[in-house]
Formats: sequence, structure tokens, C-alpha cells
Amino acid sequence: MADIHSRISYLERFITEQRRETMMRVLDQRTRFVTVVLEDIYQPHNASAVLRTCDCFGVQDVHIIENRNRYRINPDVELGTAQWLTLHRYGQRDNNTPEAIAELRRRGYRIVATTPHGRTVSLDEFRVADAPTAILLGNELEGLSETALEAADERLRIPMYGFVESFNISVSAAIILNTLCSALRRSRDDWMLSADEREEILLGWLRRSIKRSVELEREWERTGSHEQNPAPCVEDADLAR
Amino acid sequence: MADIHSRISYLERFITEQRRETMMRVLDQRTRFVTVVLEDIYQPHNASAVLRTCDCFGVQDVHIIENRNRYRINPDVELGTAQWLTLHRYGQRDNNTPEAIAELRRRGYRIVATTPHGRTVSLDEFRVADAPTAILLGNELEGLSETALEAADERLRIPMYGFVESFNISVSAAIILNTLCSALRRSRDDWMLSADEREEILLGWLRRSIKRSVELEREWERTGSHEQNPAPCVEDADLAR
Repeated sequence: MADIHSRISYLERFITEQRRETMMRVLDQRTRFVTVVLEDIYQPHNASAVLRTCDCFGVQDVHIIENRNRYRINPDVELGTAQWLTLHRYGQRDNNTPEAIAELRRRGYRIVATTPHGRTVSLDEFRVADAPTAILLGNELEGLSETALEAADERLRIPMYGFVESFNISVSAAIILNTLCSALRRSRDDWMLSADEREEILLGWLRRSIKRSVELEREWERTGSHEQNPAPCVEDADLAR
Repeated sequence: MADIHSRISYLERFITEQRRETMMRVLDQRTRFVTVVLEDIYQPHNASAVLRTCDCFGVQDVHIIENRNRYRINPDVELGTAQWLTLHRYGQRDNNTPEAIAELRRRGYRIVATTPHGRTVSLDEFRVADAPTAILLGNELEGLSETALEAADERLRIPMYGFVESFNISVSAAIILNTLCSALRRSRDDWMLSADEREEILLGWLRRSIKRSVELEREWERTGSHEQNPAPCVEDADLAR
């Protein structure tokens, strides 16, 4: 890790102290204990609002499954938050849901489908602190696919008391993440990123914040004021802007 | 109240049993302990999403202040929920905020401004059960007016941990109402409507659900199968559709 260390120290020279403090403050609050999975969302303002909500509540990873619909972002809603998140995209096949779920399981997540149907747990009673949790949100028209519903370990429902029995996706995501992240912060003290994860994410943020960071790093490598072992490549957010 | 009773019984004949059960179930969950106040919102999809959220969480009353901006609803987002809510509009003067606040105080509400600025209470720590609460939400560009901020008894903030430090209005409303209504249901048992309030609201719902309800009621009055004392006029939702 010596190399990533000195690489970060080098790049930090090119941002203001205030910017650096913001990054540190945000990093302190980032978590991978909860992650969000969007299956086939097609309205850019919904996708974008969910990213903004993830940033606000400190959820670092968002998994994006594209089956029939291409995922797009609306910059007026998203306000640049995509660049601070780690986006994982699954879009090579006709049905990418199984691959995404396999990957989430490999990372140790339980799969939680948000749906009002079937045997559900109410958000009020959902025990987020029990295990790392991937919250699956389905698309605007049909909700989650059968593949996603069948693969889920649990089903989560937002209690609703009115005539209309559904929320907009961005509203659902906000309600769920506010409740779960707030409960998580109260009930566990190991929800934060590890030291290695912090450095990896910080390096990605610096690269995206600094103009010509590629050239700067190349120059730094040439002048040799560093270890020889190259930094691992950061899982890059696909900015799509 | 005998007249409103028999008037309701008469009108109930014109809806299905299923519809009646839905109305009763929703009425059981309605509250006036929490109310929402929108000051000068100008994007119809935001206003509409807030109405839908109020319906879902059982908040019956929404107060709408129109200063510079006319309040409009987007039916694709609102999904007909405005007709199930009691909307109070303040739009006669250049600045209608003082009148709205005076009215809310007269109804016994403490005034709570949502803002990230000044001396705020975090949503996690806000004690909703202490007293009836009016949550003021400001407009998309400037937030709440100085008039509203100065009149407020308390300031409420949603804790945020990311780079972007604001939420969309409809997302803010959903987060706040979910948290407060959920806490209210857990911590008090007198948040429900009174028997009189239930009848008044039910009569309004029946009138809006039944085609030609005006003619039907007139016919019923003529045939005389009822008390002579006319029902009090329901505070009518301005449907604007």
C-alpha cells in the first residue's frame, strides 16, 4: 500500500485544503454495509435522484442492472454525485440480474427485494444491523423482475396508509435509506469503510477532481519520487456525463 | 350530527362495499397531529409528489401558501390523491405567509421550519410527540422565506453525510413524514381523528367519489327521509384537475 499512499499525498497537493477536508469528512461517513441495486430503471430523473440520495446518506456502492433499459443520468437532478459513488454496471446479456445477484452474494450481501407483494417485512421492523444488505429496487412500471424476487432472501415493504399504495422510486429509495442508514449508525460501530477501501476511494476522488490527473501521475511516475509498485486500478465510476 | 350521519348512510349506498372498506381503513390511519405547509412551491411534480406522500403516510391536511408562484398539480404524479386530502390555500395577498402561520397557531400547531441553516434540530432527535407539528417546506430555489424562518418555533434538519447538501423537496418531505409519522404512531395513541372529524372527511370523500352526488343529495333532501338540520359545509379540496 506504500505506493497508493504516496500517490495520494502527491495528488492532494493539487486540491485546496477545504476540498481535502470535505473528502475526509465524507469518507468518515461512507459505508458499504448497505448498498443499492437498481434493476432496469428507465427514467433518468429517478436514477439520478437515487444517486443523490445515496451520496447524502453515505452509501458508496450502487449496482445498476440494465436489461431492457439503458441507464441514463439527468445532471440537473444528480448534481455531480455519480462521480463520488462506486457504480457497478451489469449490461452485457439479455438478463443481467442473475450475474448481479451472484456478484452481490460473492461480496457477502443478503438480497432484499423492495415490494409490497408476498411475505414482506415492514421497514419499521427490518433489522438492518443483522448483516450486510443489498436493497433491490425495480423499475417504474413493473417493479422487480421475477428473477430478482425469487432470488431475494427477504422482501421489504414501506408501510403505507393511504388510498395510493405506491411511491415513486426516488421517494422509496430515500425513505428506505434514511431509515436503514440511521438505524445502522445507531446499532453497529463497524459500518465504516476499511483503511484500504478509504484509500482506494480517495484516490478515485482525487483523480476525478484534478484536471489532467492522468498526465500529472505519469509525470510523477517518470520523476521517480515514489515506490515502484503501481497503484491498483480503482473501480471507476462511469460518469455518463 | 344526526343529519351528517344519515346523509353519510344515504350516500354510502352509491359506492361498493370494497370502496367503503378502503375509506374506513384509510380514515383509521389519518392524522391531523402532523401537517405539511408548502410555501411557494412552483414545480407541479414536486407539489404532486408531496400530496401523494401525505396520503401514503396518513397526513390529512396540507397548507399551501402561494406568494409569487401559483400552486399547480401534475396528475401523473399525484394520482388523484388531492381529492382525499384537506387542502388549505392562502393566496389572496402578496405575502400570505403571516396569515397561514396565524391560522396554524390558531389550530394549535407549533411551527417547524425545515432548513439546514441556523440552530437546527436533527430529524433523528426531533420530538414529534411533544406537540402538534406543522412542517414548513420552502420552494425549490430559495427555500423558506425570511418571514417563515423568523416565525418558526424550531428548525428541523435532515442529517446529510455526502458531498451534496440538499435534497429535492419531494424527497425531503418523504423522509421527514416517514420518520415523524412512524415515531408518532409508536409514541402516542391520540394521533387519530376525532369522531366528528372522521364524519366530516368521510362525507367529503363520498361526495367526491359519487357522480352527481349534488343531485342525489338534493333529491334526498326533497324526499325528506332525514333530519332538517343541514350538514356543515365540508372544507373542500380544490382539485385543480
